[in-house]
Amino acid sequence: MKIAVLGTGSVGQTLAGRLAGLSHEVVMGTRNVAESLSRTTPDAWGNPAIGTWATQNPHIKLVNYSEAAAFSDGIIVHAMNGFAAIESLKQAGEANLSGKILLDITNPLDFSKGFPPSLFVSNTDSLGEQIQAAFPTLKVVKTLNTVTNPIMVNPSIIPGDHTIFVSGNDADAKAQVVEVLKSFGWAAHNILDLGDITTARGTEQILPIWVRLYGVLQTPMFNFHLKVAH
Amino acid sequence: MKIAVLGTGSVGQTLAGRLAGLSHEVVMGTRNVAESLSRTTPDAWGNPAIGTWATQNPHIKLVNYSEAAAFSDGIIVHAMNGFAAIESLKQAGEANLSGKILLDITNPLDFSKGFPPSLFVSNTDSLGEQIQAAFPTLKVVKTLNTVTNPIMVNPSIIPGDHTIFVSGNDADAKAQVVEVLKSFGWAAHNILDLGDITTARGTEQILPIWVRLYGVLQTPMFNFHLKVAH
Repeated sequence: MKIAVLGTGSVGQTLAGRLAGLSHEVVMGTRNVAESLSRTTPDAWGNPAIGTWATQNPHIKLVNYSEAAAFSDGIIVHAMNGFAAIESLKQAGEANLSGKILLDITNPLDFSKGFPPSLFVSNTDSLGEQIQAAFPTLKVVKTLNTVTNPIMVNPSIIPGDHTIFVSGNDADAKAQVVEVLKSFGWAAHNILDLGDITTARGTEQILPIWVRLYGVLQTPMFNFHLKVAH
Repeated sequence: MKIAVLGTGSVGQTLAGRLAGLSHEVVMGTRNVAESLSRTTPDAWGNPAIGTWATQNPHIKLVNYSEAAAFSDGIIVHAMNGFAAIESLKQAGEANLSGKILLDITNPLDFSKGFPPSLFVSNTDSLGEQIQAAFPTLKVVKTLNTVTNPIMVNPSIIPGDHTIFVSGNDADAKAQVVEVLKSFGWAAHNILDLGDITTARGTEQILPIWVRLYGVLQTPMFNFHLKVAH
């Protein structure tokens, strides 16, 4: 497939790299290509800046949001900072998005008042719903937002079964996203369809316990396994 | 121990019954004893009304909130409807609560606008924090609020390991609550101390996905097992 990844941070890099490794044609979308390519200072966690990463991954072309969305033949991965989510899609352009699937990983985290972050939308709404409402012809499928990026694309980092959630209004779009998840290594029985996009409220509101667990465990390499009595 | 259970719904009944079965002396607190004893119509799920339950459990005396709190020699279980949580404690009386441990199971669920329920406090605050702020001399320990009541007191309903969270400001109070959890069957390695009472935001915000999972799974008999990469 021809897949666009919007977002050049560690989530975007991880998704783009993994998808390219699975033989998809991948481009990465950014606001300003020249500015992105000039960045070479690693982030606080030691992740490479996008300029460095792009040099190391010449098979993944860095283009602007609208070129990236236009390139996609069906799936657009949305790995933006939550605050930039809707603006980046506006720049991508409704015509380039229409009818395509948005595999939406964004979380509405607000670190502006320090730790713990709050959610800038929650409870009676979600970022997934806001994106779907702003782009009605886009098929938004929220998933992968409850795990750290290495686990997203390689769930075997956590031994045994553990669960990933899928939310979205379009059954066919969810089925296609599930195939992507399976290609990353998620077992079918560990992929749980929660229902329509309003269920993104549930997964986005996992973040408040996620950030506390990161603090307690001192590692982001964890996930939940949903277990049901028989 | 002499334990008070505030709340006469299915959570209160389950906790009171289990604690009495573990040879604690247990009383149950309610707003109006005579009115509670007169109730005999089962709820929508077929759970017995408190009047029926009290007749079947004569060893657990039904008293008002202040008598219940005064009876406790250390632990008060808080199993109220979220909206009634702080008012019931006001009726219990600060003097009867002071220095005691509140094992707080309440969730800020608001079903007034139908399904899915919203949370009447969330994100930058929690019901656990509101209770702690309203009753500074009470040692609030939030726990058990992420599972349905049969699992609270009998975790083996779910096979294998699965996780229960504890939040609270007082280390000794948390240690005593952990002993109660262990007596219910929770293995020590499945009890996770998230930190101070502000971490109740994390567990209370699990409810939005919990209610959706109940809908998808068609059973409340589930829980999460937190798994960490090694």
